[in-house]
Amino acid sequence: MMKKFLLTVAYDGSNYHGWQKQVDKTFPTVEEALEKALSVFFKQPITCVGASRTDRGVHALGQRVTIDVNTTVPVERVALAMRSFLPEDISIVDAIEVDAGFHPRYHCLYKTYEYKVYNAKFKNPIFRNFSEFNHSNLDIIAMDRAGKFLIGTHDFKAFAAAGLGAKTTVRTIFNIEVKEKNGFIVIEVTGDGFLYNMVRIIAGTLIMVGEGRIPVEAIPGILQSLDRTRAGRTACAQGLTLREIKYEKY
Amino acid sequence: MMKKFLLTVAYDGSNYHGWQKQVDKTFPTVEEALEKALSVFFKQPITCVGASRTDRGVHALGQRVTIDVNTTVPVERVALAMRSFLPEDISIVDAIEVDAGFHPRYHCLYKTYEYKVYNAKFKNPIFRNFSEFNHSNLDIIAMDRAGKFLIGTHDFKAFAAAGLGAKTTVRTIFNIEVKEKNGFIVIEVTGDGFLYNMVRIIAGTLIMVGEGRIPVEAIPGILQSLDRTRAGRTACAQGLTLREIKYEKY
Repeated sequence: MMKKFLLTVAYDGSNYHGWQKQVDKTFPTVEEALEKALSVFFKQPITCVGASRTDRGVHALGQRVTIDVNTTVPVERVALAMRSFLPEDISIVDAIEVDAGFHPRYHCLYKTYEYKVYNAKFKNPIFRNFSEFNHSNLDIIAMDRAGKFLIGTHDFKAFAAAGLGAKTTVRTIFNIEVKEKNGFIVIEVTGDGFLYNMVRIIAGTLIMVGEGRIPVEAIPGILQSLDRTRAGRTACAQGLTLREIKYEKY
Repeated sequence: MMKKFLLTVAYDGSNYHGWQKQVDKTFPTVEEALEKALSVFFKQPITCVGASRTDRGVHALGQRVTIDVNTTVPVERVALAMRSFLPEDISIVDAIEVDAGFHPRYHCLYKTYEYKVYNAKFKNPIFRNFSEFNHSNLDIIAMDRAGKFLIGTHDFKAFAAAGLGAKTTVRTIFNIEVKEKNGFIVIEVTGDGFLYNMVRIIAGTLIMVGEGRIPVEAIPGILQSLDRTRAGRTACAQGLTLREIKYEKY
């Protein structure tokens, strides 16, 4: 019987060229590796539909993926059973059955990303693939204040990489918080969706605020300018983790 | 002028066959990589004396290393200047000048290792190189109580891998603590020195206590037996980090 499963997937993106399968299969992608393992396990060709196209080097704790599969395997066994089929840098942490009409992108209520900055005098090699290093004495309070100006429904053109024709550059950010957590400065961004590189440009801009290179009060003007050159740099991919994707029911 | 520098070195041990240089140079070691970078920077052959021989896959936040070097470079510039000479998984986080007679192993007061267990239902790929995964519901309080029996000066033969002829198997453990920290169970062990695999065998034994497979009260008997087969398994290398080495003056 055909069923639709919604998987929650965690991965270390260090060794992948992002989530999305490439036409040219020269470089490994998470989607491809996941489809391959699922196809072997379910003994049929499986196609994944992912909620978020994470970039090369970006990590996920809570990517969401649907698959359509003809199986009698109870869904509550899938996560555990898949352990021995997946490479060690990808893990299915949850699996539930959903309605046939469910779509992981269209039905998303919000997504939360976190951007980690390791703020110290010297690099710590252990953290290098999971954070951006910064040796300035970052002003977290200024970063948090600057972030608050971005909350709401705005045209985020100034905070998007050019060239990827999204229909609209208007998005809603529900919350931005900058705080210290487990020895890192964490920039947490929750929104209904994000433009290409948007979270990394927000992070890069807030880091420059923390360095004193962009004043807190400049943020509203940068947002209104719709001019990418006015916002800060794009923070590096390895600091970014897709933490959670929320649906009405799941 | 010849000077002796004491370096504090951090590394991600994932890609190295341990600290110690091998006669057969087939596999990369941290010591070799560090000597190579220092030799290029100081434009002379540099030999490292490390305080601790960490195993393959083991990490360090505070390895200590002395070098003898003929230089006019002020010691306070070394850590920063070396940044561009070292591979990205090794970092010098501090450098000070010490007396010519100083020895990083003989003058050590204590060393602190930490062993990290990621205790959850499913593996998190992001933590895989820096912790051991365990899906049982570990009893932290029992682990901590069991560890306390090992504090003191004892013959730790039951907790040492055979075959490496140390002169004596008596060591002093100053403290063992098991606690939750940043989402991990951390086993912290401080002692005057450790036998081969000793910290990993202590960790493996305490994890088995946490699983309920070794009773807390069995620990004194295991210690007194001097019998390696009575203690628990050797926990995997990637969970172990050499955190600190302490000297009287530094």
